[in-house]
Amino acid sequence: MPRNYKIRDPNYASRIYRSFEAQGIMAHLGAKITSLGVGMCEISLPFNVFLSQQHGFFHGGVTGVIADSAGGYAAATLYHAEDEILTVEYKLNLIAPADGDWLIAKGHVVRSGKSLTVTTADIFVKKNDQEKQIAIMQQTLMRISGHNLNTGC
Amino acid sequence: MPRNYKIRDPNYASRIYRSFEAQGIMAHLGAKITSLGVGMCEISLPFNVFLSQQHGFFHGGVTGVIADSAGGYAAATLYHAEDEILTVEYKLNLIAPADGDWLIAKGHVVRSGKSLTVTTADIFVKKNDQEKQIAIMQQTLMRISGHNLNTGC
Amino acid sequence: MPRNYKIRDPNYASRIYRSFEAQGIMAHLGAKITSLGVGMCEISLPFNVFLSQQHGFFHGGVTGVIADSAGGYAAATLYHAEDEILTVEYKLNLIAPADGDWLIAKGHVVRSGKSLTVTTADIFVKKNDQEKQIAIMQQTLMRISGHNLNTGC
Amino acid sequence: MPRNYKIRDPNYASRIYRSFEAQGIMAHLGAKITSLGVGMCEISLPFNVFLSQQHGFFHGGVTGVIADSAGGYAAATLYHAEDEILTVEYKLNLIAPADGDWLIAKGHVVRSGKSLTVTTADIFVKKNDQEKQIAIMQQTLMRISGHNLNTGC
Repeated sequence: MPRNYKIRDPNYASRIYRSFEAQGIMAHLGAKITSLGVGMCEISLPFNVFLSQQHGFFHGGVTGVIADSAGGYAAATLYHAEDEILTVEYKLNLIAPADGDWLIAKGHVVRSGKSLTVTTADIFVKKNDQEKQIAIMQQTLMRISGHNLNTGC
Repeated sequence: MPRNYKIRDPNYASRIYRSFEAQGIMAHLGAKITSLGVGMCEISLPFNVFLSQQHGFFHGGVTGVIADSAGGYAAATLYHAEDEILTVEYKLNLIAPADGDWLIAKGHVVRSGKSLTVTTADIFVKKNDQEKQIAIMQQTLMRISGHNLNTGC
Repeated sequence: MPRNYKIRDPNYASRIYRSFEAQGIMAHLGAKITSLGVGMCEISLPFNVFLSQQHGFFHGGVTGVIADSAGGYAAATLYHAEDEILTVEYKLNLIAPADGDWLIAKGHVVRSGKSLTVTTADIFVKKNDQEKQIAIMQQTLMRISGHNLNTGC
Repeated sequence: MPRNYKIRDPNYASRIYRSFEAQGIMAHLGAKITSLGVGMCEISLPFNVFLSQQHGFFHGGVTGVIADSAGGYAAATLYHAEDEILTVEYKLNLIAPADGDWLIAKGHVVRSGKSLTVTTADIFVKKNDQEKQIAIMQQTLMRISGHNLNTGC
């Protein structure tokens, strides 16, 4: 479904890569941004035993971490350079075991409003070059204009 | 609110500690079960820079990981010894910045049905011995009777 | 759990009853506000066959209508007189069949922020004077300051 | 995204129309099934003042009713003739004011499992022949095999 997104910061890509690198958790898990565009972001994560649940698959919480981030960065591609972003809430359905070599979250913007953005993400595992959807997320984010992070929400 | 929970496995505590230790992600993050009872579970996590988002607070995804686990283990306290558990879905509202020395998720069971369990979790940060609520979660889990994990859901 | 709520409009009750009466759907369903306080609202609805699903119980969608409203009016008790309210999102778990003479939703505020409010609601049926919980909701609302409804969100 | 759905009841359409007619709430609101296919269902509702919130738009709760039903019937198209369906939970984001002559919910199945089905719905208003998306829903449903509704979930 085509959408007309308004780009407020033509340098959104470098801004988002910088923000991603400033998040300790992303390096700690081994996650990388593997695709980025206007209103969309894909984050990928190779399997490692330290990301596992009791059956040796990716932990559902790890799926949540990268789904939340993929949706958030998709939203942030449409922000002004100086805007801050807060996740208001997200809801994740785990629909199949996350048994794969890679975990891949593809976030995209459903609606970009003045203060609230709504996104969805589809989350896949890749095993022997086959992708299989294992989760779906719906999320709300808030834009904080400028550097005024202390105003609360 | 008092509830009458049916205990199906009097050794639920040792079963749950074993399951927790089998999850690579929990050790990797530094999380520990700090309280466990019938229909409830508390998980705590000390701050570390590798758990942070761009402002140096706990990452929202990390909040999701331990909230999901606290709800899941709360549900599992009411399971038979041989049951398996799957998170069906969870929804997390982040209500304040997670600025603290500890992140603490307190999960408890709202309804324990034959196949589905519904839980909620309240998530707090602790800083200078003061607790502040920073998130709230609502979650659905599925019990897989016996060792029959391959039947799907 | 006691909370310190700030009352911005001491006449919140009359304002909320007026708003409730302005909603065609509430009269159409037969719903009434049966309790109202600072940060809380209870809405009750007597059973009628036109509210039913295929088994003759209250329809899950009707449960959603009054849960959404109970949470929203709980939030609105803490608003300024001229503020507008928008439901951003809600998530409802149906945990038991809604088989009863009355459907009762009790909403209360978890956090009241400058622009966003988070609520939960517990929803019950009453049959032969016995209350039974049949659903639980978690919700996000947005305050629109003054009469400026056209700014979007 | 193409999906391979398994049809278990070739007469699903007549079964679903019968179930829809057995729901008092649907006639009471004025809702109709306007499209039905394998894994999808569309429900439409003309505006009426008794469906309104305080600004004269469709009430958010009404949006929830038809979104929940559109997702549920989409799931039920893939059921056996004698299966029962329960909504486990749904989460609805309201993304724009529901200002229109018609409210239209389009539900489709994301994953159809043995006991659980996950759906999404996109909800639109139609005004002067223009459709505008006003909400998005994510939902979990449970299949109860045969007529065994009393086993609980």
